[in-house]
Formats: sequence, structure tokens, C-alpha cells
Amino acid sequence: MASNPPYRVNVEALHEQLLGTWASVRREARARCARPELHRIEGLTAAEHRERVFGQLKLLVELGAVHRAFPTSLGGQDDPGGNLAAFEELIIADPSLQIKAGVQWGLFGAAVLHLGTSYHHARFLPDIMSLAVPGAFAMTETGHGSDVQSLGTTATYDPTSREFVITTPSRAAWKDYIGNAAVDGTAAVVFAQLITRGQSHGVHALYVPIRDESGAFLPGVGGEDNGLKGGLNGIDNGRLHFTEVRVPRRNLLNRYGDVAEDGTYSSPIESPGRRFFTMLSTLVQGRVSLDGAATNAAAMAITIAVTYGNRRHQFAPGHGEDEMLLLDYQHHQRRLLPKLAATYAHVFAHDELLVAFDEVFSATAALAAADPVVESTDSAAELADPVAAGPVAADPTVASDDKQEQSAVLEILAAAFKPLSTWHALDTLQVCREASGGAGYLAENRLVGLRQDLDVYATFEGDNTVLLQLVAKQLVAGYAALVNGIGLPRAIGHMTGVVITNMFQELGVRRLGQRLIDGGSLARAMSRVQDVSTQHALLAGRLESMIIEFMSPPGRGSSKSRSGADVEVFPNRHQSELIDIARAYGELQVWEAFTKAVDKIEDLGTREVVGWLRDLYGLGLLEQNLAWYLLRGRLSAQRARAVSAHIDKLLAALRPHAQDLVDAFGFTDDHLRATIAASEPRGSTHRPV
Amino acid sequence: MASNPPYRVNVEALHEQLLGTWASVRREARARCARPELHRIEGLTAAEHRERVFGQLKLLVELGAVHRAFPTSLGGQDDPGGNLAAFEELIIADPSLQIKAGVQWGLFGAAVLHLGTSYHHARFLPDIMSLAVPGAFAMTETGHGSDVQSLGTTATYDPTSREFVITTPSRAAWKDYIGNAAVDGTAAVVFAQLITRGQSHGVHALYVPIRDESGAFLPGVGGEDNGLKGGLNGIDNGRLHFTEVRVPRRNLLNRYGDVAEDGTYSSPIESPGRRFFTMLSTLVQGRVSLDGAATNAAAMAITIAVTYGNRRHQFAPGHGEDEMLLLDYQHHQRRLLPKLAATYAHVFAHDELLVAFDEVFSATAALAAADPVVESTDSAAELADPVAAGPVAADPTVASDDKQEQSAVLEILAAAFKPLSTWHALDTLQVCREASGGAGYLAENRLVGLRQDLDVYATFEGDNTVLLQLVAKQLVAGYAALVNGIGLPRAIGHMTGVVITNMFQELGVRRLGQRLIDGGSLARAMSRVQDVSTQHALLAGRLESMIIEFMSPPGRGSSKSRSGADVEVFPNRHQSELIDIARAYGELQVWEAFTKAVDKIEDLGTREVVGWLRDLYGLGLLEQNLAWYLLRGRLSAQRARAVSAHIDKLLAALRPHAQDLVDAFGFTDDHLRATIAASEPRGSTHRPV
Repeated sequence: MASNPPYRVNVEALHEQLLGTWASVRREARARCARPELHRIEGLTAAEHRERVFGQLKLLVELGAVHRAFPTSLGGQDDPGGNLAAFEELIIADPSLQIKAGVQWGLFGAAVLHLGTSYHHARFLPDIMSLAVPGAFAMTETGHGSDVQSLGTTATYDPTSREFVITTPSRAAWKDYIGNAAVDGTAAVVFAQLITRGQSHGVHALYVPIRDESGAFLPGVGGEDNGLKGGLNGIDNGRLHFTEVRVPRRNLLNRYGDVAEDGTYSSPIESPGRRFFTMLSTLVQGRVSLDGAATNAAAMAITIAVTYGNRRHQFAPGHGEDEMLLLDYQHHQRRLLPKLAATYAHVFAHDELLVAFDEVFSATAALAAADPVVESTDSAAELADPVAAGPVAADPTVASDDKQEQSAVLEILAAAFKPLSTWHALDTLQVCREASGGAGYLAENRLVGLRQDLDVYATFEGDNTVLLQLVAKQLVAGYAALVNGIGLPRAIGHMTGVVITNMFQELGVRRLGQRLIDGGSLARAMSRVQDVSTQHALLAGRLESMIIEFMSPPGRGSSKSRSGADVEVFPNRHQSELIDIARAYGELQVWEAFTKAVDKIEDLGTREVVGWLRDLYGLGLLEQNLAWYLLRGRLSAQRARAVSAHIDKLLAALRPHAQDLVDAFGFTDDHLRATIAASEPRGSTHRPV
Repeated sequence: MASNPPYRVNVEALHEQLLGTWASVRREARARCARPELHRIEGLTAAEHRERVFGQLKLLVELGAVHRAFPTSLGGQDDPGGNLAAFEELIIADPSLQIKAGVQWGLFGAAVLHLGTSYHHARFLPDIMSLAVPGAFAMTETGHGSDVQSLGTTATYDPTSREFVITTPSRAAWKDYIGNAAVDGTAAVVFAQLITRGQSHGVHALYVPIRDESGAFLPGVGGEDNGLKGGLNGIDNGRLHFTEVRVPRRNLLNRYGDVAEDGTYSSPIESPGRRFFTMLSTLVQGRVSLDGAATNAAAMAITIAVTYGNRRHQFAPGHGEDEMLLLDYQHHQRRLLPKLAATYAHVFAHDELLVAFDEVFSATAALAAADPVVESTDSAAELADPVAAGPVAADPTVASDDKQEQSAVLEILAAAFKPLSTWHALDTLQVCREASGGAGYLAENRLVGLRQDLDVYATFEGDNTVLLQLVAKQLVAGYAALVNGIGLPRAIGHMTGVVITNMFQELGVRRLGQRLIDGGSLARAMSRVQDVSTQHALLAGRLESMIIEFMSPPGRGSSKSRSGADVEVFPNRHQSELIDIARAYGELQVWEAFTKAVDKIEDLGTREVVGWLRDLYGLGLLEQNLAWYLLRGRLSAQRARAVSAHIDKLLAALRPHAQDLVDAFGFTDDHLRATIAASEPRGSTHRPV
């Protein structure tokens, strides 16, 4: 490692690697995103912005850009991974366009695809795909967001008319924050408590027309506009409520639960809890794609700020000397380069997540026509699980334990990555905005607009803090099941023992079940903190210890180990601990993905430099949690000091490569559209008046 | 300390105390801010918003709300402290209104007041006060923001016409981000390098008309609109440039530097460096007022989020049980209550800062008519000081060392507090927005709009990171001067030895100059971490040690202590260390102000509860820097663990008082205007359709 680069980064090869598994799809999508007619225009009113984005959706249809996920039989490509890859790139054009497209095809359309059956596919999907029917995904209510199981809206079956009657029982049960609800939507997939023969069967989804051709609400449907938001104002979010709105029996999306003409309820999944989670599991693509889109936004932001920092001078070190480049200041490096490192980490981790998603959903698609398999019973007590969208073993049409495990791992990874990457994007956008000073605050330099749009990514498609608790509960419960042999705790009762055991070992917690390692001896055994194996040992060891400590709090003795059942009883007093566990888990996975990516780099110089970037990410994680390591003797004081000292060295070594490393993201001027980062900058300090 | 409150908070008395020294002025200002015609309306175009805010400025004039700082002889009140108190409250109505008023009267007007003499006061101030002449404060350039000394614009004296010729030599020297420049300003105070008889005398300010009555630029003046920004779009920021624009000789604001008709330059302050810093020091009120305004915004945000968290339910702990209030979740408390504690801390600290400001500027006002005192020489090498706006001993019209010291302390405090409070406000707004979920993202709940407006507070009126480096350099240089007896380092060469010594001891670093205290014995000597004296010892001890370590890095031996001169040589490699020192200094001052305020509370219950809040702030600072304390043996592992454990106890104890504590800020519905926090909330979970 040296300050002057003996190594050079092969920017083109690195760009190819960063594009990942769906490189050609992304290249195509980025070419589309360079088209001016898809770009966000600053300063439009919300009404104008909404109209522009709706027009852009039509253009995406014309360009054949949004149908990859749908069945080949209907003009799609049965390509779930490629679909999300293309979708994630839309954020380059306008995050409003990305999310509006996500509402139409990723939520509304995907609900019909995954929760409906062939009748619904044939009847509804063509108009959804063509945008003839813009639609809403009406799940969240004013009073219930994360707690989907407690939704208030009801769908009561009336056997005399063979219709469902949709009702909103209270103001708290109004559907809220629903995209396409305020203006454009003419139909909605409405999530409601299904009631037939006087009995509730939990939350199900129904296809409900809501507006006529003139745009007026249909009888019984009401609502209002959510008005202006912190961002994403190209999307018409709104509220909906229903007063005895009747839809035909067949409008129930009945893949996982059906009502016969006489009102008999049936389901291929007998357990209501498992059924609920199975339905929700089909919606994991929202979280997967936000992980990719947010990381894309972070990459744009760091490209803009590093490019500007490599151009703008301020302050001369001495009288008569040249002014310094911003990026030559140590603190500027300290602010930007760790964000660059984390962005690389999330790019590589996201590609792994997307591959996992594609494997699960390609299999699902292939089996979509198969009859759902009826599974064995479970108790209704599962309904009390206070977690929004717990992971599910798998689509019941996928029978093997392998597939169940894959699906469960996918959900946990998505729930762990989405919070980390969306928060990372927000932090990065803010750091880049501040590091660019007044210029960073101008809309023409994109950073503020992107941050405003990205803000809500932290709480939609699963509130970040709720998702992390979900992840941690699975880890802790799986550990309890493994170690105590007490049977599965309730939180994951819908998964089989084989699945949870395999899954758990799959999750990267490889030494779980061992006793807490003696801190002192570990510290002595370690080689230098910057070594890859040491980084891994420290990151994985922390996760492991946190889980073990959580189950057997210090001072209580091993006889007081928490059982799996306890996990449900005491979570509130330990929410923050759980969130820390989930974060440590996610960060370990992301670090491992980064490391795998480094190992794949063939060019020696590139591998060296990107390896430093990985070290910067890893040591940064250690530095953030230094007190934890010190308190447990996992790091000696001397080694702990070496962490920060080595970070300083990495910053100096990486600085000469910073431009190459952001250039490797491959964004063009048409993508960034930031004056301060343009190839031919306005306001150059060298241009005369 | 107990979960069930044996204590009650006296909300009214606490409210009075939070209003501070200028309580009645603030009450009046808040009554004005309740007027709908002063409120921000969401969804206006930038043009409409600008027009509305300009109209609001006129209303403020009519209401007599903005002239307190000006001389009584011109209809003002010579009341600098009261003026800022009222100004800070404007953020409640609309941050754009606050900042636009700040541009007109706090920057443009204050520059004429403080840098001009009686001629300028009589000639220009009446129209500035009445808004007949809206004006710009044209300091920052595209190429030079923080580095004011390197501005490119020149003002060259032409003795034949007895005029100054204002010239913009390059695109980098365009004035940029200037409020009132894009549309409304008809004049500007322009900062330029003053050149006469072929010699440059450094940056001076001139009064320059820029537009005629029709709104067209005057000959030689050009510019453009900065366009949309991340927020504050009620203000018309823009760029200006000058091509041989001529103004009369007397338009030079000549309090600290003048040019005679024949071109002879004279100044009451011979040293160019000291002159420069003296001029800039008159502008400290910008930083002081941003500290207060940002803290006000944080208080509004935490009021909104705590009120909502006390209303909204989500998830039932068990089947059939009632859903829990958000604020009963431990993690929700962990997110919000430390922000509440820090907001209290900054409110109390700000009042102390404002008192210090008022003392210095009241004295200045009283002496405004006096002839500036000519001071002794200094070398021009000071100009190389690479800090934007170094503190200055004092206005030269104020002769005593006491006053010099007061002024220097004021500048350092303002430079330390403004970064901490503006970042705190941004963090608080974001945490509150996320903790309020989708509702937090709606413009109708204010959090997103406030955050967008406040964003730029982190970089204007002195970039936060630059200000903190300035603070730290003063601390380090003062230490060097004291301990090494080597004479004053260059960075503060314009201050006398007496001043720096007194100032330094005044700054709260009370045990400075002692040897590094043995960590182990300190840890043993301490009583419980939650004790006030222990908190202080730990916070002050850390600051002290950081400065000592900075001067004598471990491993170099005491013989290698850095001299004062070194401070200038190596700052770049240690910028982050300097920033940490400044932060520790600011936090200690804020903690001490909080503690003084607690001691003043008479009501026993209120004192107890607010004392817990102070402990939460103090222990939070320890927790953030736990690794530092562990590495130096300042906290044993056992005590370090006690920090987090005690924070958990404080959260539980404070939770029942959370609503009282935010109610004590005293905001009404007309101030908050947030649907989710309204006294009669829409969308209550209890109201039927």
C-alpha cells in the first residue's frame, strides 16, 4: 500500500463487474434512462410532475421495458431477475418514475400474478401490462402499516349475490399512502379480512375496480389525495375507503385461499399464519429492488461528490502556493471514501441478493400453473406473531426443503439488506450534499432531489427498524431451536425443523453453537487487523457473541438461558439489541459479498485497489463498534488503535484512485445531470467571464 | 428514579425557563408567527413562494418586528439580543421568511451598520430598514466560499473620477448563492479586494446599486438565478458579476479602512489580517441566530414526533391484547428521547450564547460613534492563515482586554455551537420523520419541509466542518502558547497574550496544562457514572486529553511536543482530530449550560425530571465515545457497561414525562401546523368513517 499508485484500476473491467449478473439488461436500461423524455424536470408542480410520470409509464410500455416478469404466454419473458435489474436502473431517470412503475407492475400487477390464478392472469394482466388499467396496491391503512395482519378493512362474502362486500369500518382503516390512488388508478388490489359464514380467515387480496372511465370514484368508493410529500411527487399517493362495495366472488385472488359459491372457505395452506406469510412472501421483490435502487442512488451521489471534490480548489496551504483540491483534504477523504467503499459493498451484495431472488422466483414461475400443495396443520396461535411480514418457508407449489430454505434465506437477506442500503443511500446523499457546500444544495446538482425522493425508502416496503427486528428474531429463534433442542419457537413455527437448521447454517453464522470464545486468546491469536481473515473473524465473532449474549445475558448464568418462547415475551425491552444483531448480520453478509467480488477480480492492480476499499469497509465496521470489541477483550487497546491508524493509511492509498473508482460505476452525463460533475462543467474555476 | 412518576413536571414554569432571557420578546414573536399570512403554504411554485415571502417581509416592517438591532436614532432599539431572539422565532412561520429577513436586515443591513460609518447609516439604513431598498450580501463566490480572504472580485480606486471600479475577473469570482440577488435586490454590499495606487489592501465591502426601479440590472452588472434549491425556495438566491461597475468613493464602507480622494489608503487597524478578522467578526450574529433557529426547529420536530408517538398504536403484544403506543416501544424511546434531551441542552446553551452576544454588541453599539482606535503592527504573513473567519479580539472601538476576551469567546462559542445545533436539528428532523412512518413523509406534517429548509444551515454562514477546525485550532494554539511559553502561534497572532490566556481559562477547559491524568486511578476514583460530577469530569477530561494528545502524540515522547508553529504545518493530516476536539469542546459547553439550567429549576419534581434529561444527554455523549474512554482507561469495562444500562433506565423513567417535556416548548397548533400532532387530530384511530 502506497500513496503514489503503483497500481492502476482497469475501469472498464471493473464497470462490467459492478453491473453484475444482469449486465446487458442494465446497460439497455441505462441507455433508456439517458433519454431526456424520461428525465425528471426540476420545478414542475406536483400535478405537472404526476402527469409527466404517467406519460413516461406509457413510454416504458411502448419501449417494451416493463414486462420481463410477466408470463411469456402474455407477452412477458418469465424473467424475474432481469425485470428487477431493469427496474432498479429507472431511479437514474427519476425516482418517481421508478416507484410509479413499481406500483403498477411490481405491486399491483405482481399481486394479480402471484396471488391470483389463471382466471385473473387472463382477465386482468393484459390491461395491467399495457397500462390500460392503472392500479393501486391497497394494503397499508392509516392505523396499520407494518402490522398487516391487523388491517381493519373487511371483505364479507354474500352467498345470495355471490359477491364480496368490501367495507372500511373506521377512519383508521382507510387505505393510506397508496400510489395511483389519488388520481390515476381505476382498479386496486385491496387487502382485507376475509369473512365468510361468519368466520374470519385473515387477510386476503381482492381485485376491486375503483374509478369509472371519467375518473370518478365508483359507487361506495371514496378517498382523498395525500397531497405533497417530502419527495416522489410524481406519484399520486392517496387514501381510499369503501362503503359496501360489491365485487364478484371470482375477484378474490384465490391462489392461497378461496371461497366457494356457497361460502365454503378452502385453502391449500391450512395454517392461517403460514398462509398469511406465504401471501406476503410473494411481495419480497419490493424490498429486493429497493436495495438495488437505493444503492444505485448512492453510487450516483458519490460519483457527483468525488468528481466535484477532484475539481474544486479551496485554501492555499501557504502564501503564494496553489489552492488545494477538496479531495486532498484528509477530512474530505474521511467523509467521502468510506461511503464509496460501502457503496461498492452494497452493489456486490445486491447482485447476490438478486441472484437468490431470481432462483426462487424463476422456480415459482415455472410451477405457477401447478395445483398448490395442501400442507399439514398448525395452530391459529401463530396469528399473534407481532411481526409484519415474517419469512415463509416457500411457495407451497415448491415442495423441496432446498427450495423452502432458499426462499427463507431470500426473505431474511432482503429484510436485512434493504434497511442497510436505504440508510446508507440517505447518509451518502447527505454527506455528498454537505461536502459539495452551497453547490450541493442547488437542485441542478441532483443531490437534494435524490435525497428527498429516497427518504421514504427507509420506511416503505417494510419500516427499516421493523425489518431488522424480524431478521434478528429469526436468528435468535433459530439459535434457540438448534442449541436448546426445545422445538421450534412460535415465531418461526411455520417452518420445518430441517429448514430452519439448514437455513441457519447457510446464513453465514458458521460457528454458531460454540461457547463464547475467550476474548483474550482470540486477540492474541489474531494477526494484523487489516488482514482479511481477521476482519472476518471479528465481524462474524461479534454477530455470534451478540446472539449468544442475547440468549444468555451476562450475569444470569447459563442455567437462565432464554428459551425460544422467551423471545416472544421480552422483545420490547430488547428491541435495540435485536436491531444491533440484525445490523451485524447484514453487515457481515455485505462484507462477505464484497470479499467474494474482490477475489473474482483478475487484474492485479484493480484487485489490490478494490481490496483496499473492502478493507476500508471492514475496518470502518470495526471502528464503529470499537467499544464492543474492547469491552469483550476481542481487541486489545493496541489493536484497536491500529484500526483507526490503518483507516488513515487506506484513505491516503485510495485517494489517487478515487476518480477511477467512481468512474467504474459508469454513469454518463445524461445519467448524472449534475452541473458540478458534468464532463464540461459550467462555472469552472478556470473559465473567464 | 422510577418508572411511575412520583414527580410531576411544572410545564408552565419550565416553558418560561425554556423561553430564556428574552422570554417576552419571544412570546411576542411567536404570537406573530401564529398569523396565517406569515405561514408557509405547501405546494407553491418557487416564484409564488418568493413573492409571498417578499410580501411577508413588508408585513414584518409594518408590524415593527425587525428593527430592534438598528440605532434608536433611526427608529431602532439598539437591542441586538432581543433582535436575534425575535428573528430566531421566525423559523416557526417559514424558514424562508427567517432567512430572507436575515439577508435583508441581518446581513445586508448589518454590514452597512457595522462596516459603514455615520454617512452610510444616514444615507442607506432608512431605506434598508423600510425595505425600500432590498439588498444582497455579496460575499461568497463560486470559487471561494469559506476562504473569504481569497475572493477574486476587485474594487480598484480611480482617483481621476474619485470612484471605485468593481470588476469580476473570472467565472470563479462570480458572486454565488446570494439571497436577494436573483430578483428583489436593488443594491448589494459587495466584498472585493480593495486596490488603490497599485496596491491591494485585502477584502473590503462597498455599497453597490445593482438594479434600477424596473428591476433591470444596471450597466455592467450581470447575473443569473440559482434556480431551485433543496429548500428555502422562498428566497431568490442568485449569481452576480461586475464589469467595470463604478461607484462613488464614499460607497466604501469605511469603518475599518478608507481611501482618501487622492487614493491614499488608511485604516485604524494596521495589520491587514487583524483588519480582515475584525470586519468579519461583526457578522457573528448570523451564526448565533442560526444556532437558535435550528434549535427551535428541532424542538418543533420532537414535539410533533413525541405527540404522535403518544397517540398512534401499532401491534398488540399478545392475542386479544390492546395495541401498544409507539412511544411505549423501547426502540422508539431510544430514537426520540435522546433527541429531546439534546434539544433541551441546545436551548439552554443558546440562551447563554445569546447573552454573550448581546453583551458584546450592546457595548459596540454604545461606542459606535467613537473613532476607531489605531492598534500596533503585525506582519502581513497573517494573511496566510487558512481559516475563513478567525475570531478576533474585539472591535477596536472596544479597548479593554475584558471586552476583547468577551468578543473572542463569543466567536469561538458561536463557531462551536452552530455546527452542533444545525447537525442536531437535521438528525432530529430525520429521526422524527422516520419514527412517524408514512405520515412523517407527508408535507402536511411539516417534518420533511423543515428538514429540506434546514439542510443548508449546515454549510452556510460558515461550513460546519470549517468552523469546527477553526475552534480547535484556537484551543490548540492557545494551549501551545500557555504551556510552551513560545509566544503566540500565527493562527491567533492578532490577539494579545493576555486575551488568549484569559480566554482559554474562560472556555471551560479548567485543568489544562496538567499532565495526562492516570486513567486507572481516575476510573477508580470516580463514583457512579450517572453522577453529575462524574459526567463533568469525564467530558472535560476527554477534551483536555485530546488537546494534550494532539500536541504530544503518544509514542513521540514529550520532547517531541508540537510547537505552536507546527499547528499550521500539519493541520491537513489531522483535520478529523481537530474536528473531534472542537466537538468535544462544544458538547462540554452545552452540557454545562444544561446543568446550570437544571440547578436553577425551583420546582423539585421538574428539577428531578429535567435532571434525568440532562443525564441522558451526558451519558449519551459518553456512550458515543465509549471506545475513547476504554482505550485510555478512563472507564473500566464495568463502568462502561453501566453507561448503557443507565441510559435504558433513564428512558423508562422519562417516558411518562415525555409529553410534558415537549409541551413545555410551548408550541401551539398554529405553530406546528402538523396534522398528526394537532390538538384535534384528523385521522384519529378512534374516529369512525
